[in-house]
Amino acid sequence: MITLDTLNAADTAGFVAALGAVFEDAPWVAERAAAARPFPTVTALHAAMFAVVQGAAPDEQVRFLAGHPDLAGAAARRQAMGAFSTSEQAALGLDRLDDARFPGFEAMNQEYRARFGIPFILCVRRHTRTSVLACFAQRLRSVPETERTAALEEVFLITRLRIAGLVEGPGMPQVAGRLSTHVLNTALARPAAGVEVELFEIDEDAAVKLAHGVTNSDGRTDTPLLPAGPLRIGQYEMRFRVGAYFAGLGLPVAEPPFFDVIPVRFGIAEPEAHYHVPLLVSPGTYTTYRGS
Amino acid sequence: MITLDTLNAADTAGFVAALGAVFEDAPWVAERAAAARPFPTVTALHAAMFAVVQGAAPDEQVRFLAGHPDLAGAAARRQAMGAFSTSEQAALGLDRLDDARFPGFEAMNQEYRARFGIPFILCVRRHTRTSVLACFAQRLRSVPETERTAALEEVFLITRLRIAGLVEGPGMPQVAGRLSTHVLNTALARPAAGVEVELFEIDEDAAVKLAHGVTNSDGRTDTPLLPAGPLRIGQYEMRFRVGAYFAGLGLPVAEPPFFDVIPVRFGIAEPEAHYHVPLLVSPGTYTTYRGS
Amino acid sequence: MITLDTLNAADTAGFVAALGAVFEDAPWVAERAAAARPFPTVTALHAAMFAVVQGAAPDEQVRFLAGHPDLAGAAARRQAMGAFSTSEQAALGLDRLDDARFPGFEAMNQEYRARFGIPFILCVRRHTRTSVLACFAQRLRSVPETERTAALEEVFLITRLRIAGLVEGPGMPQVAGRLSTHVLNTALARPAAGVEVELFEIDEDAAVKLAHGVTNSDGRTDTPLLPAGPLRIGQYEMRFRVGAYFAGLGLPVAEPPFFDVIPVRFGIAEPEAHYHVPLLVSPGTYTTYRGS
Amino acid sequence: MITLDTLNAADTAGFVAALGAVFEDAPWVAERAAAARPFPTVTALHAAMFAVVQGAAPDEQVRFLAGHPDLAGAAARRQAMGAFSTSEQAALGLDRLDDARFPGFEAMNQEYRARFGIPFILCVRRHTRTSVLACFAQRLRSVPETERTAALEEVFLITRLRIAGLVEGPGMPQVAGRLSTHVLNTALARPAAGVEVELFEIDEDAAVKLAHGVTNSDGRTDTPLLPAGPLRIGQYEMRFRVGAYFAGLGLPVAEPPFFDVIPVRFGIAEPEAHYHVPLLVSPGTYTTYRGS
Repeated sequence: MITLDTLNAADTAGFVAALGAVFEDAPWVAERAAAARPFPTVTALHAAMFAVVQGAAPDEQVRFLAGHPDLAGAAARRQAMGAFSTSEQAALGLDRLDDARFPGFEAMNQEYRARFGIPFILCVRRHTRTSVLACFAQRLRSVPETERTAALEEVFLITRLRIAGLVEGPGMPQVAGRLSTHVLNTALARPAAGVEVELFEIDEDAAVKLAHGVTNSDGRTDTPLLPAGPLRIGQYEMRFRVGAYFAGLGLPVAEPPFFDVIPVRFGIAEPEAHYHVPLLVSPGTYTTYRGS
Repeated sequence: MITLDTLNAADTAGFVAALGAVFEDAPWVAERAAAARPFPTVTALHAAMFAVVQGAAPDEQVRFLAGHPDLAGAAARRQAMGAFSTSEQAALGLDRLDDARFPGFEAMNQEYRARFGIPFILCVRRHTRTSVLACFAQRLRSVPETERTAALEEVFLITRLRIAGLVEGPGMPQVAGRLSTHVLNTALARPAAGVEVELFEIDEDAAVKLAHGVTNSDGRTDTPLLPAGPLRIGQYEMRFRVGAYFAGLGLPVAEPPFFDVIPVRFGIAEPEAHYHVPLLVSPGTYTTYRGS
Repeated sequence: MITLDTLNAADTAGFVAALGAVFEDAPWVAERAAAARPFPTVTALHAAMFAVVQGAAPDEQVRFLAGHPDLAGAAARRQAMGAFSTSEQAALGLDRLDDARFPGFEAMNQEYRARFGIPFILCVRRHTRTSVLACFAQRLRSVPETERTAALEEVFLITRLRIAGLVEGPGMPQVAGRLSTHVLNTALARPAAGVEVELFEIDEDAAVKLAHGVTNSDGRTDTPLLPAGPLRIGQYEMRFRVGAYFAGLGLPVAEPPFFDVIPVRFGIAEPEAHYHVPLLVSPGTYTTYRGS
Repeated sequence: MITLDTLNAADTAGFVAALGAVFEDAPWVAERAAAARPFPTVTALHAAMFAVVQGAAPDEQVRFLAGHPDLAGAAARRQAMGAFSTSEQAALGLDRLDDARFPGFEAMNQEYRARFGIPFILCVRRHTRTSVLACFAQRLRSVPETERTAALEEVFLITRLRIAGLVEGPGMPQVAGRLSTHVLNTALARPAAGVEVELFEIDEDAAVKLAHGVTNSDGRTDTPLLPAGPLRIGQYEMRFRVGAYFAGLGLPVAEPPFFDVIPVRFGIAEPEAHYHVPLLVSPGTYTTYRGS
């Protein structure tokens, strides 16, 4: 991490050396933004850099967008992208897709470029693979003007996350979402302690386990179920092992119990929001809801 | 009760003798409808009589509407109305209002007649006193054309109920609503038996007890909480004595219990509908809803 | 189906011809029960036949129990069992298990016979494959006296179902359970019509679809989700496609919706009981419970 | 407020002048505790003073207990009690009871003294008038040994509250409870902002309004519904005006609405606990629970 103070005090070459890679293959963005220093907040620094892109000449802007790598494209497989894109795509496994699973990916890239003159740009750190594909399919049905705007919005999101991970100082951008749960034993009117909770990502043909936790004496997990940063748009499922919990209290339960593993499936649409998904449970009922 | 067969077979004088009082002070309605016999259903009989009113000459129709007694008016207090109106108004206590409680009633009657040329007509069997007053206030702000239609609609409802109480046969009009409850002990996943339930009518300054019941082994009351017939539009409250119930099961409860008497307050807007208002309850939570 | 009247009137040979196969390979049960005729109810007929088994000499009773075929055993694979056992085991696929999935089945049969001197007897029509295995494993840890009693109880259940499927008349045994659901749209306070519901059987490594339905205007499915007869002990999951339902009402939903497919997983422990598993749902919450 | 540091540094006379009234009419408690200084925490200060009472000679202890004023007794009416007792009893209105409402109070005081040799001692700041009476009636049925212990426990609670209001410093005793609510609009999956909430104390014949609030954008009230300090044991009711709230959103509601004013009645048994009583509500259902 570099401090904002350091960046404000650096000479232009040092500023560009530090931030030149934030906007894909476009160190000129940092170079032009350098003149606007000092920045009072990290958010203002990012806004100034993005303003450079918005204020660029039309053909320069298009060249900038066109310089982005394809998603899960040849560059990704050859690991010939910039360091940021490499790690962002790798986190979703987009650098190592098997062709059977995403057979049409390459075709979609080509179709998108042919239709809109730029690659498909998406802030993949806010997405699961399932939502990447859903967005891709949806945006292929769009029109050029809309897509130019959409691409810039995604550039905003991509670079905001890169800046937030690179620079520290006052006024950090709000990029983190949060997923939390809370289990209440409503038969005894108290938090349910010791309930195992698993979190899965759901896509059409599989449930992939992301995390495992156990509720503490307040009915919550000690650590968040998802890592810090933006949540990924997608479908999730928490599974609460309440059968074992109620049996452990000595309550009479049927064999098999009426509720044993309770799955709560929900969608995350806003990566920067707080999703509180509690479970109010007794042996004969449960309620879940989107809390706040 | 007279059977529809008897009415279909009667001579005109007999038909009018039986039904002449159904439309207020207007035996000519029955007289003209007699010619359309035989009626296959009781509903058809009522429809034919109402069609006579709808088809009457405008001034005849107005005279008919104008012949209705005031609500809670001088005729009601003198018991000088027809037998139907007498019992209908008496059931709500409109024949014996104390002036302190409904000080403006007489003034409202006069204002309504002055504005619309007819008395305020309302099917009081579908109303509580509170909703009678709310309707009255609202309709005083109406316009003449709308009020003529509203008065006829109320005549339809009034006479349908009178016919349903007087004639029996196939095709009875649907005039009955229903209020039911169901108490589930969700801590034990079984119906809650032996829970005391009280039903109150709520108006602004009081709760008047209407009924008392105890849930049976299926968690329901053996008999309906409200009498057969249309429900009365208004505000109600059921109170479930769950504290005593849970204590009786030997479950540990605080002193005082977190939930002891659970009030569930709800409005009835459709007198002919089924209102199912269940309670899913455990010592630490409850849920209620409009069921079906 | 044979009527009870016919059986009461038949000669002994006719009675035995009709019912001799009900108790596995033991026509003597029917023969001795014939003398107790006439039976007022089908339940009494079955009780009389079972009383013959209970009253048999100890060695005769053991021979009777020992004459039952193994579950998923060699006879099942050779289709060399009686017609009843054949169809009962086939309905669970116990006649065609692949060895990889149930590798230890044959070993369990041998171990059980070695330990208890009789085959493992279970009323498989009340079970899923998962619960068959769970019961088998549990009963292998039992002791001989208990197992003799357990085997007789299972014979009671097996033969009661056979009689109920063979004889018709007054006083039929209660052998049928029921699974029902009800979907209420609590945002609009009305039944949710047109919601797709799928029912799955869950075992450790798979979810097998059993049924599909759509809710009607009362929020229920027109036909039961499970066939008539006893429910099978096991784990189930209903999946309610509420995302499509809410979107169809024109309500604003996120992309992806917070609730799209709602899974409700529950256990059935009592094959002859009524399991009512409703869903009270709005875009931001749902509640499910064991109803009645 | 006096600081703990000041008390630790004072001479004995100053210490007694500051704390001599904490234990009713017994400055010797402070005098003896002074020798144990310095106290690291306020809790330790209180513990040391209470230890003096526990360690007192039996007759001295009885004299101390006997020196307490009656509840709602003659001294209260004459305002002839110590300043602490005066304000504590006045807060409940025990200094100005009308005799019709608590006719037997004086008789209960006499009966209690006659039976147990000491006045009825209760930490009234933890009680409503209803629970004062309930405790009084219950403890009258007790036995002397138990009552001596109960009286000392109440002295502990009374003096802990007095110390907590008088002294500030590290390690304050935990004497405060909390009541909070949270309203979620589950039809829209978001906090319900702008819902009016009223809080009432319920006793057998009346509901007394204690507070009024409006939910903010997070669905909570900006300020607590009850003042800082211990909650009072008793029955309460929150009333949520959801009819107006839903109508204000432009949602279709019946006239009258199914849910208009939702009463949630609950008991508080632990004055130092946190009572979180949320409402999950949509036009057709609501759920409430004891949260944490």
